[in-house]
Amino acid sequence: MTPNLFTDLPAVLPEELFTTLLQAPGVRIERIVSHGHKSPDGFWYDQDQAEWVLVLEGAATIELEDKTVEMGPGDYLDIPAHTKRRVAWTTSDELTIWLAVHYGEKN
Amino acid sequence: MTPNLFTDLPAVLPEELFTTLLQAPGVRIERIVSHGHKSPDGFWYDQDQAEWVLVLEGAATIELEDKTVEMGPGDYLDIPAHTKRRVAWTTSDELTIWLAVHYGEKN
Repeated sequence: MTPNLFTDLPAVLPEELFTTLLQAPGVRIERIVSHGHKSPDGFWYDQDQAEWVLVLEGAATIELEDKTVEMGPGDYLDIPAHTKRRVAWTTSDELTIWLAVHYGEKN
Repeated sequence: MTPNLFTDLPAVLPEELFTTLLQAPGVRIERIVSHGHKSPDGFWYDQDQAEWVLVLEGAATIELEDKTVEMGPGDYLDIPAHTKRRVAWTTSDELTIWLAVHYGEKN
């Protein structure tokens, strides 16, 4: 049975769901499922690895230090390491399913 | 404007379409669009890098040396380096859109 990104989705999602799909040296592929979740006010991610992120379903708004990016299905964004960002909004109307590819040396 | 995987799709696709979305040391993310394309009879890919592949839309059949994998939207597959495989079939009913993450040292 081939694993599928769109299955095993919870009916209720009190917290964002993070599932590692692939882990290898220098790369980690992760599914993230959100449902109205957003980063806490004033909280900014600052990650040691770069992250390429793709929205598969749903809708979200990402804030970077210098811009705000609205994302829907098929939209993708490359975020260099140590670029501060936060998830300002995800829709409550449906699940937002992300694919994140974390890559590069941790520095 | 955020780049989008599902836009800029050709109306006619005589050859498979390969578009590199991200290129970084040790990782390359690529969109592949197929429309009834398959690997030539008897042809097997044998790649120096590992490849994690996800079907976003459409339907396809991948042959590995020891098994055949039917894939639809959301299905993903990790193919180690130097694992022989071929695309046995993609649907002619619609475009098949793949996301491929090539990763690891070339060896």
